[in-house]
Amino acid sequence: MNTNKRTEISTLGEFGLIEHLTKELTPGNKETLLGVGDDAAILCYGSNEEVLLSTDLLMEGINFDLTYFPLSHLGYKAAMTSFSDIYAMNGTPKQLTVSIAVSKKFCIEDLEDFYQGLKLACNRHNVDIVGGDTSASVTGLAISITVVGTAPKGTTVKRSGAKETDLICVSGNLGAAYMGLQLLEREKIAADGKDIQPDFSGKEYILERQLKPEARKDIIDKLREEGIKPTAMIDVSDGLSSELMHICKQSKAGCRIYEERIPIDYQTAIMAEELNLNVITCALNGGDDHELLFTVPIADHEKVAAMKDVRIIGHIVNESMGLALITRDGVEMELRAQGWVANDK
Amino acid sequence: MNTNKRTEISTLGEFGLIEHLTKELTPGNKETLLGVGDDAAILCYGSNEEVLLSTDLLMEGINFDLTYFPLSHLGYKAAMTSFSDIYAMNGTPKQLTVSIAVSKKFCIEDLEDFYQGLKLACNRHNVDIVGGDTSASVTGLAISITVVGTAPKGTTVKRSGAKETDLICVSGNLGAAYMGLQLLEREKIAADGKDIQPDFSGKEYILERQLKPEARKDIIDKLREEGIKPTAMIDVSDGLSSELMHICKQSKAGCRIYEERIPIDYQTAIMAEELNLNVITCALNGGDDHELLFTVPIADHEKVAAMKDVRIIGHIVNESMGLALITRDGVEMELRAQGWVANDK
Repeated sequence: MNTNKRTEISTLGEFGLIEHLTKELTPGNKETLLGVGDDAAILCYGSNEEVLLSTDLLMEGINFDLTYFPLSHLGYKAAMTSFSDIYAMNGTPKQLTVSIAVSKKFCIEDLEDFYQGLKLACNRHNVDIVGGDTSASVTGLAISITVVGTAPKGTTVKRSGAKETDLICVSGNLGAAYMGLQLLEREKIAADGKDIQPDFSGKEYILERQLKPEARKDIIDKLREEGIKPTAMIDVSDGLSSELMHICKQSKAGCRIYEERIPIDYQTAIMAEELNLNVITCALNGGDDHELLFTVPIADHEKVAAMKDVRIIGHIVNESMGLALITRDGVEMELRAQGWVANDK
Repeated sequence: MNTNKRTEISTLGEFGLIEHLTKELTPGNKETLLGVGDDAAILCYGSNEEVLLSTDLLMEGINFDLTYFPLSHLGYKAAMTSFSDIYAMNGTPKQLTVSIAVSKKFCIEDLEDFYQGLKLACNRHNVDIVGGDTSASVTGLAISITVVGTAPKGTTVKRSGAKETDLICVSGNLGAAYMGLQLLEREKIAADGKDIQPDFSGKEYILERQLKPEARKDIIDKLREEGIKPTAMIDVSDGLSSELMHICKQSKAGCRIYEERIPIDYQTAIMAEELNLNVITCALNGGDDHELLFTVPIADHEKVAAMKDVRIIGHIVNESMGLALITRDGVEMELRAQGWVANDK
């Protein structure tokens, strides 16, 4: 949090604060008729478009740790992860609302930092910030982001359309964000509250994957260019295993993926070794990757095989065959899902 | 919170919990193409419609106190207050997403209670629950509600359209929800943690206004029937004073309202007397009324004067004249706004 300059939120009050944070927000999309400042934003979509709506709630101490997560990065990440949900529907994000609840430990400069990251992400993806809410909080920070997107009628891709023999593809690589988190947690424990600057050289990539993820608009664009419409798609937020289970459950299908095909970055592998973790387990169950996981008809094999930064990792099978990972030595292992469990307090 | 039966959330896990809470949600609106269960909901609006988007974040200990606020009522109120924002734009709410973060003190039955109230409100206003998010929380409960509504093109009413000589109108009566809150707070302190059932007879109305507010769809319907389009409109959530300031600021106008015209219910007045509070101050600054405050051209005077449950309380004047209340004895008092200030922790 901001330690240089500290202006108490009470100096502005609720309405002053909203005005201060949102004063430079000029909507750029033609679909945004009215942004921040009324009871609701006003949007307008053509009759040939479908409107996509997704929402996320992020809680301090659960979804993020401000000890090592700068607020500007948090704003950036909160926006990016919500855009990722819209891309995972094969849509384009257009508008965003943000609500924040803050305890008194936060000052105006902290919220400015948060908004700065949020705005940067929105600018990069041409998304308008059109509304929100602010509240006090007894302890900590709570952030709620809602994003609205659009897609031409009939082009959205759900989780439920995967068919037997479809190829399972994933963008980028997996487990890197989780490794970045493990590294940050280790250094936090090592620093033990003291202001030590750890040496992160050679580990920049995994840190960036955790602290500054990018929503894969580029993959959606490429798929369109190639004329490929996935049969099912989801964004990898809880780990590959969990997302495959969502697709298979909703598509009433099973799957086989191959250990040797799972894309892992070099830094992810090194870090896993350093921490004595199985890197494949990290890729399967580590969250926050925000890569796109999708299935395509086998007829598109050549096209997807040639796509940069996309890897075919397996295929869809009959529901009765269940979900399995084939290890390098040919053993079938059942996939299991992860999710959060309520904490202890 | 639920004390009869207690099932830990961990028995279901995140995905099981979402499925459990949302399993009976069948969208009823033709505009809802896909509800809960994917990365985003899919909506479809005609090209002659505008889409309205509004969001609220509610924090335990700030926006509600579970000591006296049953979770089913909280769900109902959270939905109703968000619908109120859409009605205040002269629109119709259609879809809602709900995100909840819960600490371990909450069990599945608690969340069922919350959802029961939420669903009841949604059923009454024909709103589809189409998505959401769940998270753990370090302490307490956080709720984020986003509501999407619609209005035929060109029929939305902003805060910014009030003109000099327009009449200022308000639905229902004011200060009742605030009085209900004062009563609940008083009984909470009196009970001091002991399980005493206070006698609330003769005070049911003010309690209901706090615990079970109703969004004023009926007023919007009546205005349409009468062919009245307000020039500006807002819902009264932070108190009359604050809402008048929003309308006047955004309309670049001033106002005069008359103390004797401010609608106060009998129970509100009695309670104010009991607590030795000025009832007009409560109406001006007490929140949570969720009545509609709107302005109409003076030409509509006869029509609005004849409307049941609507009161003309004053008129819009030139910006240079400022905002004032004219007391019963003819004194002009400047109106001042309220808002939240960050708490102490």
